[in-house]
Amino acid sequence: MGGLPVLNEDLVNLPNWLVLKLRIEGEEAIRLDDVELLDYRQELDIRCATLGRRLRFRDHSGRVTLLATRRFVSMADVHQAGIEWTITPENWSGTVDLVSALDGRVTNAGVARYRQLEGRHLDPVSPRTFGREVIALKVKTRQSDTYVSEAARTRVWVDGRSIEPHRTLYQMEDYIQQLLTCEVRQGTPLRVEKMVSVFTSRDRSISETLTNAGKSALRAPEFEPALARHRAAWHELWRVADLELPDNERVQLLLHLHASHLLQVCSRNTADLDAGVPARGLNGEAYRGHVFWDELYVFPYLTFRIPEVTRALLMYRYRRLDEARAAAVEAGFRGAMFPWQSGSDGKEETQEVHLNPLSGVWEPDLSRNQRHVNAAIFYNIWNYFLATGDLPFLRDYGAEMLLEIARFWASIAHFEPERERYEIHGVMGPDEFHEKYPGAAQGGLKNNAYTNVMVAGLCEVASGLLPLLPGNRAEMLRERLGIEDEELRVWDEMSRRMFVPFHGDGIISQFEGYDDLEELDWDAYRSKYGNIQRLDRILRAEGNDPNRYKLAKQADTVMLFYLFSEDRLRHRFERLGYEYADDTARKNIEYYDKRTSHGSTLSFVTHAAALADIDPDSSWERFLVALESDVGDVQGGTTKEGIHMGVMAGTLDLMQRSYVGNEIRDGVLHFDPKLTERIDGLSFWMQFRRTPMRVTIAGDELRVSAQSEGFNEPVKVALGNEVHELRAGESCRFALPRAPHAMAGPQVGS
Amino acid sequence: MGGLPVLNEDLVNLPNWLVLKLRIEGEEAIRLDDVELLDYRQELDIRCATLGRRLRFRDHSGRVTLLATRRFVSMADVHQAGIEWTITPENWSGTVDLVSALDGRVTNAGVARYRQLEGRHLDPVSPRTFGREVIALKVKTRQSDTYVSEAARTRVWVDGRSIEPHRTLYQMEDYIQQLLTCEVRQGTPLRVEKMVSVFTSRDRSISETLTNAGKSALRAPEFEPALARHRAAWHELWRVADLELPDNERVQLLLHLHASHLLQVCSRNTADLDAGVPARGLNGEAYRGHVFWDELYVFPYLTFRIPEVTRALLMYRYRRLDEARAAAVEAGFRGAMFPWQSGSDGKEETQEVHLNPLSGVWEPDLSRNQRHVNAAIFYNIWNYFLATGDLPFLRDYGAEMLLEIARFWASIAHFEPERERYEIHGVMGPDEFHEKYPGAAQGGLKNNAYTNVMVAGLCEVASGLLPLLPGNRAEMLRERLGIEDEELRVWDEMSRRMFVPFHGDGIISQFEGYDDLEELDWDAYRSKYGNIQRLDRILRAEGNDPNRYKLAKQADTVMLFYLFSEDRLRHRFERLGYEYADDTARKNIEYYDKRTSHGSTLSFVTHAAALADIDPDSSWERFLVALESDVGDVQGGTTKEGIHMGVMAGTLDLMQRSYVGNEIRDGVLHFDPKLTERIDGLSFWMQFRRTPMRVTIAGDELRVSAQSEGFNEPVKVALGNEVHELRAGESCRFALPRAPHAMAGPQVGS
Repeated sequence: MGGLPVLNEDLVNLPNWLVLKLRIEGEEAIRLDDVELLDYRQELDIRCATLGRRLRFRDHSGRVTLLATRRFVSMADVHQAGIEWTITPENWSGTVDLVSALDGRVTNAGVARYRQLEGRHLDPVSPRTFGREVIALKVKTRQSDTYVSEAARTRVWVDGRSIEPHRTLYQMEDYIQQLLTCEVRQGTPLRVEKMVSVFTSRDRSISETLTNAGKSALRAPEFEPALARHRAAWHELWRVADLELPDNERVQLLLHLHASHLLQVCSRNTADLDAGVPARGLNGEAYRGHVFWDELYVFPYLTFRIPEVTRALLMYRYRRLDEARAAAVEAGFRGAMFPWQSGSDGKEETQEVHLNPLSGVWEPDLSRNQRHVNAAIFYNIWNYFLATGDLPFLRDYGAEMLLEIARFWASIAHFEPERERYEIHGVMGPDEFHEKYPGAAQGGLKNNAYTNVMVAGLCEVASGLLPLLPGNRAEMLRERLGIEDEELRVWDEMSRRMFVPFHGDGIISQFEGYDDLEELDWDAYRSKYGNIQRLDRILRAEGNDPNRYKLAKQADTVMLFYLFSEDRLRHRFERLGYEYADDTARKNIEYYDKRTSHGSTLSFVTHAAALADIDPDSSWERFLVALESDVGDVQGGTTKEGIHMGVMAGTLDLMQRSYVGNEIRDGVLHFDPKLTERIDGLSFWMQFRRTPMRVTIAGDELRVSAQSEGFNEPVKVALGNEVHELRAGESCRFALPRAPHAMAGPQVGS
Repeated sequence: MGGLPVLNEDLVNLPNWLVLKLRIEGEEAIRLDDVELLDYRQELDIRCATLGRRLRFRDHSGRVTLLATRRFVSMADVHQAGIEWTITPENWSGTVDLVSALDGRVTNAGVARYRQLEGRHLDPVSPRTFGREVIALKVKTRQSDTYVSEAARTRVWVDGRSIEPHRTLYQMEDYIQQLLTCEVRQGTPLRVEKMVSVFTSRDRSISETLTNAGKSALRAPEFEPALARHRAAWHELWRVADLELPDNERVQLLLHLHASHLLQVCSRNTADLDAGVPARGLNGEAYRGHVFWDELYVFPYLTFRIPEVTRALLMYRYRRLDEARAAAVEAGFRGAMFPWQSGSDGKEETQEVHLNPLSGVWEPDLSRNQRHVNAAIFYNIWNYFLATGDLPFLRDYGAEMLLEIARFWASIAHFEPERERYEIHGVMGPDEFHEKYPGAAQGGLKNNAYTNVMVAGLCEVASGLLPLLPGNRAEMLRERLGIEDEELRVWDEMSRRMFVPFHGDGIISQFEGYDDLEELDWDAYRSKYGNIQRLDRILRAEGNDPNRYKLAKQADTVMLFYLFSEDRLRHRFERLGYEYADDTARKNIEYYDKRTSHGSTLSFVTHAAALADIDPDSSWERFLVALESDVGDVQGGTTKEGIHMGVMAGTLDLMQRSYVGNEIRDGVLHFDPKLTERIDGLSFWMQFRRTPMRVTIAGDELRVSAQSEGFNEPVKVALGNEVHELRAGESCRFALPRAPHAMAGPQVGS
């Protein structure tokens, strides 16, 4: 199949280190399918990402055995993992064999629709042992030449006393195991633990992966102290990263679940590995580990808590700036054009064909035209700077990316003399149902409103950026990038003259010509198909084309009401010379809400945020849907292909951005709490310009306390027009409106 | 030879990308040995590390040819290098072949005494081409599994016009070349350029090295614009890193040479690669690329100019903290024991035997007992924090290293009840001539004074460190490291009760028992051997033992007078309950100066610094020796084995630390200028707590101006008791004593 996506190893499997098996009296290894389960309980400890299972089973010989297992991948030591089994024979005694193995014969087969693609990514290198207790295996990825070595040290205790089992080694080039033979007695627990070390050739401070893995396994602490260090590392994280909402148990649980996943994917450990923010986290194979734009949802939560991690993840983009420059040049543009989907080296990885599982047909995929990812990256860099005041970052890395992105947008835009406006053609917005005009040969649309408004905003920032830098640096950067006065003038003009399409009574058209599309009979499709989140696949399988209709997979125009406050949007539209009426938000959100299938889980977050002012009950309802989306696998099976980073982080972001209402304007951290009865009792730590603060919403007040310990500089916080400057150890309280903030109608936010 | 040092790949060669050869009329390639050189000029442009050569030669057929070459390794793009040849036939026309190759058959053979060791570190992987113009070669290091790929794009111009030569490819598994055949005409220059891209599997943001190298070479700019970008990057560096001393041309030149080398070895480019500070820089094979303690001399210059690079290099140590912890445990200690020599994974790499080139004998090498490297690392971290106020670094990484190092020192020390003092046995000071007591079976000495005083100081910092951190973080860190109150109490006590040996009239003994050693007949050895810098080798070759004598290879006790001001030393000794008299410095410096062979180039820097107050003329003389040490290859042949990072950086540090007299005390940046007539006209940029300042010494005043651009926070600067707080844009002037600061005798510094 010539049209198949190219093999891409941005996500590969590790050799399976979980292999631990029990054989009783030399029989086949126990499998759950072959025994009678008497009891089964599985427990994910969200606080420290530790998985436990407890099962009792009766085997074909009537032997009843209790098995308790625990496992973790260490947050304290990036190379360390551990697994522990405690086996108690309830009604028998005898000989057991424990199989402890490392298995390199793994494939990527977790996503059904990818199974026709090559799933083997590991070539064997060699097995070996380190002394009596440690087995090790080295493999190499087939395309990217990354070596991966694992070493496992297995030890056994009976009734709390260390014993030395008889060990039998078995190895092949891509598999190694030890068989540990021990005697067990009825009622006496046998505990086996396997401490695993993993090194890859992308790791820093290593010599050679196999040697380092072996050395690390030999030195590893035992399971319990290693677990204690892992727990302590998580405890430290929660001290800065927790959102406490004690009065709503379900919401609290799911916020914790989401924060726990986010912190597993984005921590100092992963950031130091030059890992980005993959759309599906680290626990599934969908999208092959690719990085999209989920950072937009992830960073606000991180930046106000662990800004160092955001900074490291922005450096992930910076290291790929040259690739983005090359992409711009190859597409005929200037500056830097970051790709819609990217992997290890930052080149465009978006597939060109896409399998429709409903029809079995490979269809063209034009989604790489989502150039708006470049607006998101700009937004992320700028907002990181506003929140942290990290001038060295802006000076050395951030400004260069901002300027190059602005330059890209100026080069893809053109001035339309008739309208006297700048326009952008040939792109897609976030809504993936619209790739092109119905019947058009070429992909892309004209003047996606979300994109154009974002571009106007980023051009305003970019045109005023250089004076923020130290003079020397600004001059050097201009010289190096060759930025002329004319270019700065054009950016300023684009911030005033980008074209935004409208139709009807003040409706912002998702893109130019949107109004000419047909309305879909939503009720008919809902009654025919039930779940119509993926209307694109349904329509195409019918031989129809989603491009024909007024429908959206996910928030597109509505993104604007998510990312910006009313104040900001008013400024933006007025600077552009467009009217921004008191009812613009309400009218547009309602218009698009009716025409969105929410085929991306992110869409619930965006609409919940947009509705916070307009319809708090509906907002909260969407928030709850977003919260449940992975735990409930609301898209019918996609969660097992990997969690959805955007929506998980989005629920945390929504809480902060929309319900607490944080926005930085003119160096002041504004609060604008909404749905205050729903979030009564909320409290959390945050940092603003490196000064740690405690924020609490309780009863009729919002309290902000700047901490003395770790204090950096005085910070200004505000609610409405009331502004306080907080010095070390100072607090302030803002009165909250007692009545629900909702239903204020056209006055909201004005 | 079983005792040979283990193969270590901390320094390996790249495939040779410089290969460019000229063949005229199908003859053998021109070699300098085979032609008559009519003219030869070689030029290293220090400002941008660019090497140029211009030569005219007459070959055996009487053809006279002018060849001008330029080459650079880009500071702007870490993957890029370029080489350009311009060939002008002066009295002939004809056909030439240009050989452009990448050669993987390189060995490490740059150091004569290592040549018996394995010098091949590269295994071939594969050659390939990318299109018509690009050849590429992939190799792999033999021990560390690092892939290295290079790609070269060769283009030709005649008389300024691009031409397409006939290209012939030749390749083997470890070598690839293109032969470019062109016609040249008398008097018409032919220009060939080879743009090279280098990727290794340790690089970030790559997929696979060969693919990335090829893609990069295809996209590379041509030589001239690439060189312009390289120059601009250097220009940016000099804007913050230059020390201008316009009135002393020779000193200015050598300070520039040293800064240029330092910035090649320690830049954002290398730091992002997790490269440390190798003792011999990046251009020689001596010490096999190992990292010692040269950071101590390198960081002060960097920290006040490009603190981000110091921070990244401190992270190099942090990533190796676990290895240092393991080393401490294996040696029976607690905390973290960083090794004397280390490489990629941070384990001890000090050789156990050492070849004496005078005797040809392999002698035991006990130098790993130089545990004082752990005091230097502590000092570096703490001084980085004092200079930058980088609390996030201290909180997340620095404090952990400081506490673990203090813990190591507390565990290697023991309390001696008779003396009621803490002692440290079994170590060496910086002086490598003393490894053990004469005739002793075991290595190490008792109570090295330098070490013990450093430990007293670091224990004072460590015992008061936790309250500087945010409370949460301090608590977590204590819990994680298991630091008890008792441990903090011991550190505090050690800061008051470390033992320091003395002998004679207030002489600090280099180590306990030093006074019992014999005096050497220095004059006899000088007259017999001339250069006696390496007295150890001379004595051992005579069957004698340097351990018997009062002699030092390099500053040991005198290091104290280099690292600390009189104020600080007085505080230190008084806190320890020892007398620190007005003449302590002078007496000790003179005592040891007479007994030091300066067998390490660093020693000149240290003594020059120590003498700045006492004997300015002698100080300046040593400074000039240190300045000339690499350019003049004063150690007789060691420079070709690699530049000496410590002494190069040391001359810059000396200028700042001793002659400008910078020291931070109680949050104030103190100036204490010396030799002010020698450094009249000196001016430079520096940062203090992220606020950029311009410092100028001219005539009878020192001027400090805080810049508005890039301003971070108000800073306090002082000279003597005069303290000024500078806000953005503010300046202050301090009057300098008009008389030379020197010869003030016992009053100096009091």
